[in-house]
This record gives sequence, C-alpha cells and structure tokens, in this order.
Amino acid sequence: MFKKILIANRGEIAVRIIRACREMGILTVAIYSEADKEALHTQLADEAVCVGSAPSKSSYLNMEAIISAAIGTKAEAIHPGFGFLSENSKFAEMCESCGLVFIGPKSSIIDKMGNKSEARKTMMNAKIPVVPGSKDKVNSIEEGKELAKTIGYPIIAKASAGGGGKGMRIIHAEDEFEMNYTSAVREAENAFSDGSMYIEKYIESPRHIEFQILADSYGNVLHLYERDCSIQRKHQKVLEESPSVAISEDLRERMGSMAVKVAKAIGYSSAGTVEFLLDKSGEFYFMEMNTRIQVEHPVTEMVTGIDLIKEMIKIASGEKLDINQEDIKLSGHAIECRINAEDPKNNFRPSPGKIQNLHIPGGNGIRVDTAMYLGYVIPPYYDSMVAKLIVKGNNREEAIQKMRSALGEFVVEGITTNIDFQYEIINNSNFIKGDISTHFIEKEFHM
Amino acid sequence: MFKKILIANRGEIAVRIIRACREMGILTVAIYSEADKEALHTQLADEAVCVGSAPSKSSYLNMEAIISAAIGTKAEAIHPGFGFLSENSKFAEMCESCGLVFIGPKSSIIDKMGNKSEARKTMMNAKIPVVPGSKDKVNSIEEGKELAKTIGYPIIAKASAGGGGKGMRIIHAEDEFEMNYTSAVREAENAFSDGSMYIEKYIESPRHIEFQILADSYGNVLHLYERDCSIQRKHQKVLEESPSVAISEDLRERMGSMAVKVAKAIGYSSAGTVEFLLDKSGEFYFMEMNTRIQVEHPVTEMVTGIDLIKEMIKIASGEKLDINQEDIKLSGHAIECRINAEDPKNNFRPSPGKIQNLHIPGGNGIRVDTAMYLGYVIPPYYDSMVAKLIVKGNNREEAIQKMRSALGEFVVEGITTNIDFQYEIINNSNFIKGDISTHFIEKEFHM
Repeated sequence: MFKKILIANRGEIAVRIIRACREMGILTVAIYSEADKEALHTQLADEAVCVGSAPSKSSYLNMEAIISAAIGTKAEAIHPGFGFLSENSKFAEMCESCGLVFIGPKSSIIDKMGNKSEARKTMMNAKIPVVPGSKDKVNSIEEGKELAKTIGYPIIAKASAGGGGKGMRIIHAEDEFEMNYTSAVREAENAFSDGSMYIEKYIESPRHIEFQILADSYGNVLHLYERDCSIQRKHQKVLEESPSVAISEDLRERMGSMAVKVAKAIGYSSAGTVEFLLDKSGEFYFMEMNTRIQVEHPVTEMVTGIDLIKEMIKIASGEKLDINQEDIKLSGHAIECRINAEDPKNNFRPSPGKIQNLHIPGGNGIRVDTAMYLGYVIPPYYDSMVAKLIVKGNNREEAIQKMRSALGEFVVEGITTNIDFQYEIINNSNFIKGDISTHFIEKEFHM
Repeated sequence: MFKKILIANRGEIAVRIIRACREMGILTVAIYSEADKEALHTQLADEAVCVGSAPSKSSYLNMEAIISAAIGTKAEAIHPGFGFLSENSKFAEMCESCGLVFIGPKSSIIDKMGNKSEARKTMMNAKIPVVPGSKDKVNSIEEGKELAKTIGYPIIAKASAGGGGKGMRIIHAEDEFEMNYTSAVREAENAFSDGSMYIEKYIESPRHIEFQILADSYGNVLHLYERDCSIQRKHQKVLEESPSVAISEDLRERMGSMAVKVAKAIGYSSAGTVEFLLDKSGEFYFMEMNTRIQVEHPVTEMVTGIDLIKEMIKIASGEKLDINQEDIKLSGHAIECRINAEDPKNNFRPSPGKIQNLHIPGGNGIRVDTAMYLGYVIPPYYDSMVAKLIVKGNNREEAIQKMRSALGEFVVEGITTNIDFQYEIINNSNFIKGDISTHFIEKEFHM
C-alpha cells in the first residue's frame, strides 16, 4: 500500500480523500492555490504545497507544478478527485512516465472514453445499446441532415469533446437544423477547441440512470447498482438518489450486467460510472462513461456500505477486489442534495463570500461532505458547490423526510445558497411520487 | 400520531429527539433553563419555553413547570431523554394523570426497575440469572457478613437506590467488611436519602454487555443485539461498541433471548436496556434494566439501521412494532466515544466555557450528535458530555481506523476535552485486541 498520496484537488472532495487516506494510515499531501491558503483541505492534510495563483489553470490545472509537488514530497500516487485533471489523459500519462501512480484508469482508457463519439463507436462495436445515431463524427451539415432524416426528429447534436451541456442542441425539425447545428459547432469550438459533432435520436423525458463500477487490474469488474440523477439543471446534476424508483429488479440486473460489460469491453480499472438514458418504455441506452470518482458517489456508499475512495486507492496500489457481486447488497434509500453557493433567484449566479454563520445538520443517517467552516471565505474562482448533504433512510419516504428535516436545519449565512431551492424540489409532489425525468426542473420550476 | 411533543431535556439528546420529530412531521417544544437561552436545542425546536433558573432542580427537574409548559403549548406527549426526569416514576405518573403521554414505560415499571434490589428480586423470581447474592436488602452488618461468607469473597455491597457508582464498595475479606459496608451506607444515605444495601458476589474483570430492547404495548418484544460498554471510568461509560468481540453467535442468541425474557417478565413497553455482567468463562448475570433511551443508543442504530427514538415515539402513540426479530440484522461495527468537557490531566475536572474554535469531523460513516457550535458557552451546571462521536466501519478494525481519524480531526478549543484521552484508548493495544473489561481504564491508565 502507498505510504503517501498527493490529492490534486480542493474543496470537499479533497477533504473526502484526505479522510479516506487517514483511515488507511496513508500520509497526505494537499495542493493549494494562493486563494486556498486557509482552505480546509490545506489545513487537514499532513503536508500542503502551494502550486500557483488563484485561477485554476495556474494551480489546480498546472500539471508540471503538481507533478513537482508530488515528487518533492515523495508522494507515490496522485488522486485527482473529480473535475480539474481527473479526466485528463495527458496528466495521467505524465504521472505514469514520472513513476507516479495516477489513481484512476490508464491514460489510454481515459482517452478512449473522453472522446464521446469514439466511446460511442467502441460501445456499438461491443454490442452495447446506444441511442440511434451517427457512428462516426458528422462531417458536414448535409451529412447531418441526411442522418437526422434517417433517425427521425427530434435529434440532438453533441460535441465529440463535450461535457457539462456545452456544444449541445436539440433539433426538432429539418428547417431548424442548420442554425442549431452551426451554433453548437461554434460553442464546441470555443469550449473545447474541437468542433466535431455527432448526432443522436433525442429521447424525450428520459431518466439519467448511472451505474457505479469498480474494476481491478486483474479483470474483475463489479457494479454497485444505480444512481438516479434525473434532477438536473442545464445538464448539471442537482440531486441524486439510489435506488431509482423507475427500476425493477429485472431491469436493475440487466442494466448492471450491461454496465459491467461496458467496463470489460474497454479493459477498465478503478472506480467509474456508466451513464445510461432510460426512456419511458424501459429501454436504456449507453450515454457515456465517466472515468473518475463522481460528485454523487456517497449515495452509493450509503446504500452499499462500500467506501469507493478506499477501493480506488486499493485498486491503484495493485490490490485485487476482495468483494464479489453477490456480496453487494442494496440497503435502504439514499438521497444527495448538492449545496451550491449560488442565487437561484438570480439565474443561479455564483455567490462567493465569507461564511458569517453556519449550522450543519447532523445525527442519525445524515452525512455532510463539505469543506466549509465558520469564517471561511469561499473564493470566486472555482466551482460553486460547497457541500453535499446526503441522507439515508430505510425507504425513499423516510429519506425524503430526513432530507426535508436536514435542509430545514442547514444554516449558511453570508453567502446565498440553493438550500431553499433544494427544499422546494424535495417537497414537490411529482418528486415525492417519483415522477421525474431530466426535464423535471425546467417543467416544475419553469426554468 | 402525536402532533406536538415536548422534549424535557437539553443538549445533544434534545437535539436528537427534535430531529427525529421533524422527520416524523411532529412539532416540537423545547424547555430551557435561564442558562440555556442560546442553546442549540432551544433554537432548533418549533417552540421553546423557559422553565426556570440554571440549576437543574429549578428547571430540568422542575416537574410542575415542565408539565405546565406541555399543557400551555398543547403538547400531547413528553420525551424525557436520559438523565433528569427520565427514570422518575413520579414524573411519569404526573404526565399520566395530566393526560400527557410520557414517552417511556409506565410509571409502575419505572418503579419496579428503579429500585435495584426490588429489580433483582423480580428477576430471581422470573428465573433470570443474577449475580449470586442477597435476594432482599441486607438489614444489618451481621446479616451482611453471614451472607458474604456463604457467597464467598470478594463481594460487592451496593445501594438499593444506587446508580453512577455511588454507595458501592468492593470488599475482599471479612476483616474489612464493617468499615467498607458502613461507608457505603453513609454514601447511599447522602446521595439517595436511602441507606438500604444489597450484597453480591464480585465478578472479577467482567464485561459490561447490554442488550437494547424494543417493546410495544401489545406484548411484542424485540432485542437489537448488544453493546459492549466495558470501557468505563468510575462506573461511567466512556466508549461503547457493537457488536462485542466477546460474544459468539450462540451466546448472542442466549443473551438476547434472556433480555427479551426480562422485558416480558415485567410487562415492559418502550425502548429499554437490559444490562448484564459477562464473566471470563462466558457466564452472564442480569445487572439492571434501564427504563429509558441511553446515551449510547446510536451505536445500535448504526449497526441495525433502526431509529430508536422514532420507535419509542411510535410505541408511545400506541403503534404496534412493525418489525420482527428476524428482520433485525447486525451489519458492520460501530463505536461511540463520549466527548466530555473535562480535563483528564486534572482528575477529569469539568471544563465549561466558550467554544473558541470548532471543527467537527464528518464524511463517510461518521456521525456526530452534539449541541455545540462555535461561540457557544457551555454552562457549568449540567453534565459534561458535549458530543458523541459515532463511527461505523465494515468491521471492528475499520471502525477503529475511522475513530482514530475522526478523533484526530476533531478540534474543540476554548474548553478542555477528553478527545486526546479517547485517542489513547482507541490506540491502546489491548483495546485493539479487544481484550477489555470494566477495569480497562484503571488498569491501562493507572487511574
């Protein structure tokens, strides 16, 4: 096992990883930007190295500085968390070539799944169901139009290098194809310096169902059941839960096996997530695979009792998985609300600033992953998520009650948060009924 | 179900009960003393009523004021928590006669178990194994000496009305009988205005093993397995865990059935705890039954997934238990450390004062039940326990690692706490081996 790990991230996920390491007896090195001198992760780690100025690209995306910090502190491995460099194959490669273990899959696998149209092609070849659409990237507007006609409208045009909803357009009819397609290409070029697109059938009112995967370096692959992440705003997840009310035992079995097949098809190792779209008729389609730990991983930890960060570290150190698929049991129901420093009444504008008053809920079945503390100044440079509130009940009803109570108790003053917005979601009658899709927020909140 | 409950307590247990009520959609009334105006429980409840001045007997033990507060706020039931009036049969009786539901057993049951020699007699009649000793109270020194000879030294003399280690003496030989016995009587008279004593065989290096009970008003009784509470200082529990390493499946089954038999023998209803002494040969003896929720109840909640406070409330409202013994599964391993505002280097002297800095650990498998917050002033009038840190791992080893990490992360400044002392316990090699008894702390720490 590693003696020392560098955590190439900040905020709650850095704290989460530091805690897992402490529990495993592994020393930790935090990296921090000049804006994060007083951050909790900086204080909590055994060592901390400043890697640059506040903007991410100078610090948390500064590969050379991070690698140097790891070498300088004699860390043996780097955990990238999520975001930042977590799906950057070049960084994984740099780690590999510097003799550092990148805690995640091999750089070639990141590459294979990072390019969405490439991933799609791989899956089609492996007989994984994908949404009907182009196998290769679309080369021209004409080719796109032709394809759209074959698939049938509505279709969705997506950037090959995409993510976070950028470079994506739903197109309902041929006469609006050119305008939308061109604007998606432009957006993709701006965001990813890559304007290549692919086209898919647009699934109406689908659910976003993802399966958590654990795979070791010896070909053993497990799934840890699903998370229903349908509650999204502009393609950003807002609330996640497990299990999904939309999934029968039989469907769970089939989707889980398919997720394992996806991971096996690419020779995956580490924790990963296979995302599916589930339509109303119960058909499901591979969407993409995330080759990192995800924000919403605690939901799975709560219902399976398996610590995903520890498993990732164990796998990266060369250990075999010591659990079998049969050992993994779903117990109870977990919900996570992402708490963001943002103003829902002001178009969700980020709301950085100093925490003037803070009461974090706690108690039975309540878990809060956060790096906030009273007096902490949330810097304006990074993602607005400041806490994850996760609850576990014996069933969905109890989990909702717990979440309602915990959100009601949560006090963060000095900044604006989405706590009240989450409270409205949890009290929405369609949410309570489990009648949700990826359009839930735009439908119910007219946004 | 009740619409409104008054919580006749303070601190973390009041907060714990308020949270359970919120999750159940029940309104809450807090009571507070003049010293607790700014306390978390006062702030968190839907309503709060001041019931008197700072000393407990003027406020948290002020039965008339509490009953008035309940009636005035139209609360239908009173949850007494632990300590204070929780085992006061007169208070339970007052509730009953005022048409308020006392959330606990009937007053007659509290009486029956509250008098330790009475309880012992009841158990002997019900064929529950008790430590060999007097059936009735001992009437004179001569009678005591005679009995001690029959039982065989060492023996222990205990106050009938006792608790918390007061009025208790171990006597190793006849020539020291009189002196010790007389001093125990004197102590009992001072503490409980009742000098009556009983005598038992003194079990050397026993474990304190207690079984959690749930019983409804329809004669259904369940046990929720054991807690090992052997780590004590002066008969006060310091650290508790479940399951106990000393208990085989067979012994667990036998002790659990015996605990159920105890509860049935007295017609118990509500949550309760049957305490046993377990000797090195695996023999166990009924010690006493606590007719209330206990400090260490979260340990059981973590390994069974059953919310004991909610169950108590449901039982008190007349609901039937909706779980069977077979449904209750032990999963993983939980440990609780009591965090006290006290100075272990200064004979554990209480250390009230203002919290100047506070960092509460969190994350996967970590639960903290507390009423502390940054800036809160811990008043000098009440119990020194300020938090309960509870962790759950997949096994004891992981639970210990988690506790080590969480204790290491816990920061409370402005007062002195026993966090470092708990850290030493958790790192003690005999504790890690599971080689513990009620004498652990005096042996390992020479105190």
